[in-house]
Amino acid sequence: MTSHHHAFDDAIALEAIEAGRYAGRTHAAWGNMVGPFGGITAATLLNAAWIDARRIGEPLSMTVNFAGPLSDGAFVIDAHPVRTNRTTQHWSLTMFQRDAITTTASAVFATRRDTWSAAELHPPDVPAADGVAITPSPIPFEWPRRYEMRFVRGPWPDLKLDEPLPESESLLWLRDDPARPLDALSLVAQCDVFYPRIFRRRQRFTPAGTVSMTTYFHAEAAAFAEQGSRPVLARARGQRFTHGFFDQSAEVWSDSGQLLASSHQVVYFKE
Amino acid sequence: MTSHHHAFDDAIALEAIEAGRYAGRTHAAWGNMVGPFGGITAATLLNAAWIDARRIGEPLSMTVNFAGPLSDGAFVIDAHPVRTNRTTQHWSLTMFQRDAITTTASAVFATRRDTWSAAELHPPDVPAADGVAITPSPIPFEWPRRYEMRFVRGPWPDLKLDEPLPESESLLWLRDDPARPLDALSLVAQCDVFYPRIFRRRQRFTPAGTVSMTTYFHAEAAAFAEQGSRPVLARARGQRFTHGFFDQSAEVWSDSGQLLASSHQVVYFKE
Repeated sequence: MTSHHHAFDDAIALEAIEAGRYAGRTHAAWGNMVGPFGGITAATLLNAAWIDARRIGEPLSMTVNFAGPLSDGAFVIDAHPVRTNRTTQHWSLTMFQRDAITTTASAVFATRRDTWSAAELHPPDVPAADGVAITPSPIPFEWPRRYEMRFVRGPWPDLKLDEPLPESESLLWLRDDPARPLDALSLVAQCDVFYPRIFRRRQRFTPAGTVSMTTYFHAEAAAFAEQGSRPVLARARGQRFTHGFFDQSAEVWSDSGQLLASSHQVVYFKE
Repeated sequence: MTSHHHAFDDAIALEAIEAGRYAGRTHAAWGNMVGPFGGITAATLLNAAWIDARRIGEPLSMTVNFAGPLSDGAFVIDAHPVRTNRTTQHWSLTMFQRDAITTTASAVFATRRDTWSAAELHPPDVPAADGVAITPSPIPFEWPRRYEMRFVRGPWPDLKLDEPLPESESLLWLRDDPARPLDALSLVAQCDVFYPRIFRRRQRFTPAGTVSMTTYFHAEAAAFAEQGSRPVLARARGQRFTHGFFDQSAEVWSDSGQLLASSHQVVYFKE
């Protein structure tokens, strides 16, 4: 992946310090309430394996554990292939700030080959992207401004309403803003654009944050090339909220209706 | 968790060798085509953190990466809390055989507290467990005989049919056999009882195996106590099959209709 001189590529940029150790820095354009947007942290961790000379294949799965707060500033990533098989490679990734572990991750890379294929989950029926209005982000953080969001259902909630809804689904056409050709790095970040589903479900603010996020990649080089920088269809909803945590599941689809990634996370909430 | 003198507890039993290092051994009662059932490996890894004196809280999430084959025989698990927060604790777990990494895992433990709660995903409408016949396992491996399975839909496929089906769902009442009170350890194993969905979808054999599996636990001590050893309702289906891999998602419900866990995996298949 070449640099597009894009804020995304600037944010995930890493410098090799020694074998398997990379230095990076949070980017103001991706700021969240505290520290950076989790999706950009996931993409940065994935990038450490992606740019490593030992890497084989393309991303197949990734789990990111948000172990502690990441502050604005410098960080270090340790990236090690723990096992390399004929067609899969397992990576262990750890992000540090001042010697404290902020984030751990595992990723599996795989060489893809043609096989029997079939879709089972089908995309929801929606109008084309250019028929859906762009909703500017109403929240005072930077990262949502890096995305063009066209909500079909479940837009940014009005947290002042304080009135529970029966469900938490959001369904939107989504694109990097400015546009950038889709790849696994931007896709894993896009899988985290769904703000905590409890905000949508309750229309009320509570402190909340992703604890762990897992993404499965169906897209490989040809699918990314086919999608280019056109909007993808993205959907998420919560499953159960209880005892201070909930799980949410998401899908990202190509505009031709192919499932590009499925992604799941467990999220903390305060009350 | 005390020993119930149950094959499950025998299989996940570990001996502390030194701080954060445990020795175990695969158990013949949980044999799969090659090595043990993945679910018992997940439970054994979780048990290493569970029995560790440093552990706080109960399991919230777990990702297991099946990096390489686990052979029948002895193994070692390294278990380390990489970060302990006020209410969450992040663990890194690694399983070795003869100094080769076979399996890596991360787990998050959390102390639970009463909060706002809501269900969003609802259980399918099914007859009560005692109204559904038990299907004995037709496959020549040991692990399915450790479960009582009552299929409402999508039973063990007849792989000789070699005729694709439009979907891969299985829905069943599930219980350890002999019965054992449910806990997080048995629950994570139960989340892997769904044989690769491609067998159901294609009704044909192809080499296949789980690459990575992530489970989110909603159940905590009170929910496990309420469920006891009665059957749980379990459901899984594939999402997309392409380029040698597919993802499948599963849910496990209490018999009172509460989501106890959601679980997802990406699976390799050969052709």
